[in-house]
Amino acid sequence: MSEADSTPHSTPQPEAEIHLQSLLVNQAQRAALMGQKPCVIWITGLSGAGKSTLANLLEARLIADGRHTYLIDGDNLRYRLNRDLGFSDRDRAENIRRAAEVARLMVDAGLIVLVALISPLQVDRQLAREVLGYDDFIEVFVNVPLEVAEARDPKGLYKKARSGEIKHFTGIDSPYEAPLHPDLVVDAHHELPDVGVRAVLDLLLQRGLLDAR
Amino acid sequence: MSEADSTPHSTPQPEAEIHLQSLLVNQAQRAALMGQKPCVIWITGLSGAGKSTLANLLEARLIADGRHTYLIDGDNLRYRLNRDLGFSDRDRAENIRRAAEVARLMVDAGLIVLVALISPLQVDRQLAREVLGYDDFIEVFVNVPLEVAEARDPKGLYKKARSGEIKHFTGIDSPYEAPLHPDLVVDAHHELPDVGVRAVLDLLLQRGLLDAR
Repeated sequence: MSEADSTPHSTPQPEAEIHLQSLLVNQAQRAALMGQKPCVIWITGLSGAGKSTLANLLEARLIADGRHTYLIDGDNLRYRLNRDLGFSDRDRAENIRRAAEVARLMVDAGLIVLVALISPLQVDRQLAREVLGYDDFIEVFVNVPLEVAEARDPKGLYKKARSGEIKHFTGIDSPYEAPLHPDLVVDAHHELPDVGVRAVLDLLLQRGLLDAR
Repeated sequence: MSEADSTPHSTPQPEAEIHLQSLLVNQAQRAALMGQKPCVIWITGLSGAGKSTLANLLEARLIADGRHTYLIDGDNLRYRLNRDLGFSDRDRAENIRRAAEVARLMVDAGLIVLVALISPLQVDRQLAREVLGYDDFIEVFVNVPLEVAEARDPKGLYKKARSGEIKHFTGIDSPYEAPLHPDLVVDAHHELPDVGVRAVLDLLLQRGLLDAR
């Protein structure tokens, strides 16, 4: 443990004073004990697209197959770890950075990690990919037209956004940048959630991240 | 997912706009699949006391016994998730809060989590205990006299603190408040690290957090 002068919030501390501890147990050992290959399935899409639905069904299926998983839900993260963050551009980016860093720790623990997070901007998802590493990061775009997500409006948020009660709402007065090269696109408009679950599992099998069970 | 007006950094967002997602898979299922009871072993003590040594040996032993674990090292956290934090009182408290929140997510994933963190103040360790819940939080105080830790000085930090090169260093010009009611005190001055490992394992067995193997 090391300590240095008080520094203002958000100023990186002098790295010379922080000593990276080398650990006895590593990711390979933890993952071997779990009998699986850890990775992150990063699920992006509009509010109401069906990210949480996909993530929950996928986790239930993985657990039923005896895989060790964790689901990081963007909304739930905002209740606890990220409760100090609002919705400014800076805070949104920090929200995504922390989600990615937590996912990285979970992957280091050997887990298959699902992240369900609007993560509207290309640049922030790219940062998440860099935090996680290219091989272990599977970007899944849950695609529905805005009109469909807005018609569903499961939490009544689009209505509030249209009336101006909520500002900076993704898809209304804040941009959603669709992924240019996602690992998988799930059509959550025409297809049932089970189809998306199957597609993710097939991709993981194909990439050698899951063994057949 | 929900969004609201831009709010300044550190202002909690209006909770009315965040909807807690209920998840299909819960902690009990994840822990059952791992065949263990998740908990946090929170290891506090001076720089140089031997926290990381104890944590590493303990994790190696748990893994050898087939337990699923993760070790959150305070120094390593400052390289990534907490890289935006310095050493002001506010940033130190935030450093500990985030470590506790990450540990909470890991416990929710079913893991036995070890945290090695100076965490010098009573109030911050109390906050960590509240984040984690009383039943699952085992506070281990790695106790050595300051003179012993300073004589060891494995990273040369005490020397820098005495010369004034580093300020606000715990034990020198920043306080370390020894725990009043720790779950366990490890005497890392007179006893070898293996004795501390054994004592933690015995405590976990006694509390029913580990089954005998």
